[in-house]
Amino acid sequence: MIATFDLKWGLILLTLMIPLSNLKPANAQDSNATSVGGRRSKAASTFGPALRGQKVIDLSHTFDEKTIYWPTEDGFRLIPDKAGFTDKGYYYSSNRFTAAEHGGTHLDAPIHFYQRGKTAEELTLSQLIGEAAVIDVAEACQNDPDYQIGVADLRRWEESQGRQLIDVIVLLRTGYAKHWPDRMKYLGTDELGPDAVAKLHFPGLSPEAAQWLCEHRAIKAIGLDTASIDYGQSERFQSHVMLYKHGIPALENVADMSELPASGSTVIALPMKIGGGSGAPARIIAVLPER
Amino acid sequence: MIATFDLKWGLILLTLMIPLSNLKPANAQDSNATSVGGRRSKAASTFGPALRGQKVIDLSHTFDEKTIYWPTEDGFRLIPDKAGFTDKGYYYSSNRFTAAEHGGTHLDAPIHFYQRGKTAEELTLSQLIGEAAVIDVAEACQNDPDYQIGVADLRRWEESQGRQLIDVIVLLRTGYAKHWPDRMKYLGTDELGPDAVAKLHFPGLSPEAAQWLCEHRAIKAIGLDTASIDYGQSERFQSHVMLYKHGIPALENVADMSELPASGSTVIALPMKIGGGSGAPARIIAVLPER
Repeated sequence: MIATFDLKWGLILLTLMIPLSNLKPANAQDSNATSVGGRRSKAASTFGPALRGQKVIDLSHTFDEKTIYWPTEDGFRLIPDKAGFTDKGYYYSSNRFTAAEHGGTHLDAPIHFYQRGKTAEELTLSQLIGEAAVIDVAEACQNDPDYQIGVADLRRWEESQGRQLIDVIVLLRTGYAKHWPDRMKYLGTDELGPDAVAKLHFPGLSPEAAQWLCEHRAIKAIGLDTASIDYGQSERFQSHVMLYKHGIPALENVADMSELPASGSTVIALPMKIGGGSGAPARIIAVLPER
Repeated sequence: MIATFDLKWGLILLTLMIPLSNLKPANAQDSNATSVGGRRSKAASTFGPALRGQKVIDLSHTFDEKTIYWPTEDGFRLIPDKAGFTDKGYYYSSNRFTAAEHGGTHLDAPIHFYQRGKTAEELTLSQLIGEAAVIDVAEACQNDPDYQIGVADLRRWEESQGRQLIDVIVLLRTGYAKHWPDRMKYLGTDELGPDAVAKLHFPGLSPEAAQWLCEHRAIKAIGLDTASIDYGQSERFQSHVMLYKHGIPALENVADMSELPASGSTVIALPMKIGGGSGAPARIIAVLPER
């Protein structure tokens, strides 16, 4: 009996080992595999155990010569270093780059407008990852490039969702992402330099709404699809000052949010971890809710 | 009866509306809220619906003057611009920065060693997000700074996990993250310039193992906690060439992976979206499996 038992388990073990002992993958895997760009990959690729079967979208603009920065800032610059075959026979390319912290899809760390605020690398992941509360004001902004998102817009979300803006990343959808990278449409001016600042016209968060969020709600972070959390015509940047004093960072130049529902999606905003940075380029993605 | 019914629903609706109609949050929320850095936030903050209740860790080193780059590269440089109170009374700080694409915690895009390979912004999110297969070779690397992770190390993972390296992000844990940012211990030399390259000693992936992964398995990406996917003494960077020819990008200078189990965690590697980049600084996080 014992010999039979061992033989049975030996056979089961042997069967389990076969796929591992083949250098070539088992046929069962080949039938799932397709050729993609010269390498095999599973047809139904997943995002790993935590996000299996979910849809993930990119909310980030590309950094290149068209990337929009403030009119007073130098933009992103890729500095080609090498690109070609080495004397050892292999191909090699690499670049350097230079950029302002604040431009393109990026994070504003609280120290940007608050002396004792956190720097880019000090923000915790729990503040940069969370449920998106999408405030859709695209219609109002289409009619008014100086639109300031107010308390009423935020409360409209709360009323429709039956809950308060607590523990969420507020995303203000002005619809301006569709103008990227057309500076004239996106910023209201394509001029550069200090004189262009007074000509900026794009929507932002009103100082009253910033204060209300800071004093009466508890959000992780806020973001929007324009160049600044204060609207283009702001002169004292009061929404920046208010939010950052309360430790709430902002994500600016977020890309098209039209796929996001009002609630239920998960934003993952990962800024470059710049030590002492007042901000940083950020890659922002969203996990859509399961249907 | 109808009047009674309406009254009842009216009272229920009124009760539901109370938290929304208060400018101050309801007491029920206050009891959950604690003061963190001057703002209220929920004691049990979550990572949003997709990651609720899970633990997320950072696998990224900070970019600063100590950040390790190749001996021939200029490192990361923060260029302070403004920091102080403006004449309008608010505080304002901002910086510029300059960096090589390849240094610190970063992505190698396939074009880095393969002329027709994808650039940084072309890689899809499905290739940068996935289950981590952690190959722990820290013990072998402790005894041999020139250790090359071989096919046997990869197959040991497969045997212990009872599955093949398919549809995963392979993370090679050499244990070298603990040496960061000590260049002498991490690179084997703290010298700079072209003559220092021959003095590099740190572990990497053997060319045979790279070939085996490319030809017999189907992985999304690979990463490790050293400065290069090829070991320090490599002269022809054959693992780079092999992987990138097959469209498999690499993550280099990944931070401490000791909290990651051999399988079951989810890596989210988000590089700065540099248009035409041969690589990019990356923020890498991992979602630990639920217990």
